[in-house]
Amino acid sequence: MISACIITIGDELLIGQTIDTNSAWLAIELNRLGIRINRRIAVADSKEAIIGVLDEEIPRNRLLLLTGGLGPTADDVTKPSLCDYFDTPLVQHKEVEDHLRKLFSEKLKRDITPRNLSQAMLPRDCKVLMNPVGTAPGMWFEKEGCVIISMPGVPFEMQEIMRTSVLPMLSERFLRRALVHKTLVTIGIPESDLADMVQPLETMLPPGITLAYLPNFGSVKLRLSATESASLDDLDVWYEKFAEKIKPYLIDREDREMQELVFELLKKSGKTLSTAESCTGGYIAHCITRIPGASAVYSGSAVTYSNEAKEKVLGVKKSTLETHGAVSEATVREMVTSILNLMETDYALAVSGILGPGGGTPEKPTGTVWMAAATKDRIISKKYFFRYNRENNLKCAAIYGLDMVRRLITQTGV
Amino acid sequence: MISACIITIGDELLIGQTIDTNSAWLAIELNRLGIRINRRIAVADSKEAIIGVLDEEIPRNRLLLLTGGLGPTADDVTKPSLCDYFDTPLVQHKEVEDHLRKLFSEKLKRDITPRNLSQAMLPRDCKVLMNPVGTAPGMWFEKEGCVIISMPGVPFEMQEIMRTSVLPMLSERFLRRALVHKTLVTIGIPESDLADMVQPLETMLPPGITLAYLPNFGSVKLRLSATESASLDDLDVWYEKFAEKIKPYLIDREDREMQELVFELLKKSGKTLSTAESCTGGYIAHCITRIPGASAVYSGSAVTYSNEAKEKVLGVKKSTLETHGAVSEATVREMVTSILNLMETDYALAVSGILGPGGGTPEKPTGTVWMAAATKDRIISKKYFFRYNRENNLKCAAIYGLDMVRRLITQTGV
Repeated sequence: MISACIITIGDELLIGQTIDTNSAWLAIELNRLGIRINRRIAVADSKEAIIGVLDEEIPRNRLLLLTGGLGPTADDVTKPSLCDYFDTPLVQHKEVEDHLRKLFSEKLKRDITPRNLSQAMLPRDCKVLMNPVGTAPGMWFEKEGCVIISMPGVPFEMQEIMRTSVLPMLSERFLRRALVHKTLVTIGIPESDLADMVQPLETMLPPGITLAYLPNFGSVKLRLSATESASLDDLDVWYEKFAEKIKPYLIDREDREMQELVFELLKKSGKTLSTAESCTGGYIAHCITRIPGASAVYSGSAVTYSNEAKEKVLGVKKSTLETHGAVSEATVREMVTSILNLMETDYALAVSGILGPGGGTPEKPTGTVWMAAATKDRIISKKYFFRYNRENNLKCAAIYGLDMVRRLITQTGV
Repeated sequence: MISACIITIGDELLIGQTIDTNSAWLAIELNRLGIRINRRIAVADSKEAIIGVLDEEIPRNRLLLLTGGLGPTADDVTKPSLCDYFDTPLVQHKEVEDHLRKLFSEKLKRDITPRNLSQAMLPRDCKVLMNPVGTAPGMWFEKEGCVIISMPGVPFEMQEIMRTSVLPMLSERFLRRALVHKTLVTIGIPESDLADMVQPLETMLPPGITLAYLPNFGSVKLRLSATESASLDDLDVWYEKFAEKIKPYLIDREDREMQELVFELLKKSGKTLSTAESCTGGYIAHCITRIPGASAVYSGSAVTYSNEAKEKVLGVKKSTLETHGAVSEATVREMVTSILNLMETDYALAVSGILGPGGGTPEKPTGTVWMAAATKDRIISKKYFFRYNRENNLKCAAIYGLDMVRRLITQTGV
């Protein structure tokens, strides 16, 4: 396989101010072309650091992808570092200059400054990769049989340059059969128990087919991968063996998140969903509405974070809140019935709990979450207990809440 | 300064299945101790890759932090790789075994399996770092003047081991004055214009004080950093000069997100907020409710994703929706008035727009977002146009929406 290295450049990556999402996106795209990432490296905005990593990685890779450090400000030094390294001067690039002038006059509707125009000064000895959505173009260099590509760090600009230039050029250069992955998604079984369950199969896997575990708060994914040397028929056979083995916990055969699965189930059956959220504070609504086209199946959410909101928006009875508390079966059942009727949807979900750090009591410790899901004819409700911190308890609540909806739709485990 | 390298281990990081958030968290914590991250490297779950990176990085660092590959499944090879590298056998660790038995019987409430118990087999020649919240302990090795620490990749387990063991031990070993950062947050000025504005100051910065730009969708942060050699008084003086220079765009002097700023402003004045969200689909509610204690200032949101929900939950008039459309000044003004009255809060915010990819028209192109913010006595409304993809238009809408609330609270720019 072609081996590649992703190099992200920026002080902000080394002091923790920015989380690197580019690397994951790039890895997925390169994987599709059968290019394997050996290493990802983040280095500082410094000429020394950039040249150091090029020196080390060029001899051991066929492809380096650099992102970051191409902005118009003085802390961006990737371009001058590349000029030094490849010993090439900067020259004015007419096509980029035209693009910049057009971008400012037509889209950004402001005057172009000399600083902006300096983005059209590019190394003479590289292929320039146009950036249709921003000011910093990409650059394609070659040295010692290695392709070195530099792109801006702004994710959507990088992605656009990849789609319009880099991926077509790379597939022309390198294309071969990709590493093939097949995924099984489980819920409700801990990673180590799942591992015990599949171990007899795992030890018998033929060479070239590997298994990985990807745990994500109660929902563990099993990923089988076949390298170029393995047969895809073999992969299918082993995939079915694993699927059969873990059947009671298997909820999806595609690598997608719970909200995508629920979205597809609703869409296929032409049904709709609404939610009433207390502790999850709009996060479940956000998970669903991130999906383009969500409006076809999702009406909305009453985010009733305060008790007053539960009474005013959802008509939860004051006596219920006083007798049972906001985190109780009685409250979530009233919430779910109310939102189902208010939004007139086919399914509804209600969640109320204590995610932490504060708010727990001996009777209802932090991590206690009540949920209810309903159709016109049926309500199911359940108490969960999550043992993580606020952020991760939130993720758990969303996954298990949406799983309740999934179970109602598919009529499994209810 | 002490130089360190963060090494994350896992195939999932190289095929894009997981976004690495550990590195950013670790960088912030190490920075506080005055430890500078030179590089971050992600490598595969393979003995060869792990030993290769140790060989290269130990000679050039005083500290290596490894995360990942310590799970109980066969794809986790960090522990055997470390045993090979440091030439030490695995031995049973009594304290870890006791912890595991207790964790399973008291917290997880299930039987412990041999696979789980194998987590108590640890390299003889390391300091074991107890993991209070999980099964895989951390390990502390030393070689050639370099400290090598291995921890699990699960973020909250890693963080707990850092807090309870690693940070206290590192500060005892290495403590010195930290790199000091001071941040200025701006809104409404593009990065390149901001750079032109501050350039005269930037060129005069004394040695040891550096400036970085951190753009985030219309809200650009300026970060001044002082190394150990620079005077903190100097840093303060220059910080004030920059603050003065960019005054019209300066909204915050702390490095925090817009929702944290709005939360603090509300909390200080004892006021409350509610929201009505269409296109943002609960994301603004989620941004606010991520903050622990948000319930003190935030009542909730009506996420009215469909037009029917706007009518049913918020009483937006059918005639308004038919005449002006859901994305209109008239609609967001009705939404904001309705939610303010329904939730009885001091402030309210309403958002309706077209985030893409589909849904745009020649009159209302994708990226058009109407917003309104209100108090009992006043409504302000404004049309925005965002030029990014769905995900980033969503982020813009949240930042500018919350900024409208900020302006109403502070009575600036309204």
